[in-house]
Amino acid sequence: MTATTTKALTVQEAIETRRSIRKFVQEPMDQNDLREILELAGLAPSAWNAQTWRFAVVQTPEVKAKLQEAAYGQPQIGNAPAVIVVYSDMEDTLANVEETAHPGMGDAGRTGQRTTFDNAFGAQPVAQRGAWGLTQANIAFGFLMLAARGKGYDTVPMLGFQPDKVRELLGLPEHVQFAGLLPIGKRAEEGFPHHRHNIDRVTKFY
Amino acid sequence: MTATTTKALTVQEAIETRRSIRKFVQEPMDQNDLREILELAGLAPSAWNAQTWRFAVVQTPEVKAKLQEAAYGQPQIGNAPAVIVVYSDMEDTLANVEETAHPGMGDAGRTGQRTTFDNAFGAQPVAQRGAWGLTQANIAFGFLMLAARGKGYDTVPMLGFQPDKVRELLGLPEHVQFAGLLPIGKRAEEGFPHHRHNIDRVTKFY
Repeated sequence: MTATTTKALTVQEAIETRRSIRKFVQEPMDQNDLREILELAGLAPSAWNAQTWRFAVVQTPEVKAKLQEAAYGQPQIGNAPAVIVVYSDMEDTLANVEETAHPGMGDAGRTGQRTTFDNAFGAQPVAQRGAWGLTQANIAFGFLMLAARGKGYDTVPMLGFQPDKVRELLGLPEHVQFAGLLPIGKRAEEGFPHHRHNIDRVTKFY
Repeated sequence: MTATTTKALTVQEAIETRRSIRKFVQEPMDQNDLREILELAGLAPSAWNAQTWRFAVVQTPEVKAKLQEAAYGQPQIGNAPAVIVVYSDMEDTLANVEETAHPGMGDAGRTGQRTTFDNAFGAQPVAQRGAWGLTQANIAFGFLMLAARGKGYDTVPMLGFQPDKVRELLGLPEHVQFAGLLPIGKRAEEGFPHHRHNIDRVTKFY
């Protein structure tokens, strides 16, 4: 068991101390912190300000138990006070794309946003444009983990689950694509140290 | 022109003060800062520790000029002291996947990592598994922008460019997929305020 700092972490501290944590202190999420973390994640950038990300926050024990079933019973779901399901809804984005135009641009901005998205995605199959939406949701997924850690919370990103079962459980349409499940809470274990490529292995300079 | 703080920012400060910046102070990137920023981005999590992301850092004026051409001449590329091209190389990931096994797991870890990836992706077309790799690279793309901002730098994520021309310019294989171009430097303009969905618009609670 580790006492978790309440001091706001710098970006560097947040990144360096982030671990995949699967055992959490058994207390409910502070609902103000939860909301602030989601709001920070929502400030992520996206192409044309598409904001394809959507969040489903599971805290009710019965729903959490079913979510755990859909994730092959992995115990970190039941152990966490909350699980944030991060997904992309590109069809919702497209249907309401005027909402994402900056208000300062007025009607011209709303019309332009509609034209931009219709030209880029109108002729694409739902699955293809959905895959694009998912790339943008994954930027917010990264922001979400760091926003949580910055406020002293820990998470574990998970891709091991049955998407159809999660859609059914949460009443989500078939076209949504998942960035992942994110159990969140205060760490009650240390986690494992990072193992990463040396930066020269993955970087070229020109 | 805005004086840029040198104090390390908290995650919240970094997210709230991040803007898309297209005009930069005309001075070269501090190479130590650049390296630290890349190393922090490389600490992003990824499924099975795949680390599909790769970075191409363009600082030479001649290469930068050609990169700008490949991005429809958008001036923020020429204006920034450096541009980080963030891409996913899923084929390199798969060919060398043993490197991503944690050394503490020994030979069994390396064998297990190979089996996991072969089972998950061995039968998939290159484009399909490449799209998966890109979702993971986009998590690091988000980390990269915050790591930069956390150290007082600014960026502007860009998807408006011709991928084939960028591949050719940088000598990258055809299968790589781009998270985006990221001009980086110290801000010389204020940028525009955020416009985002209210969090209740994009969140459901269960």
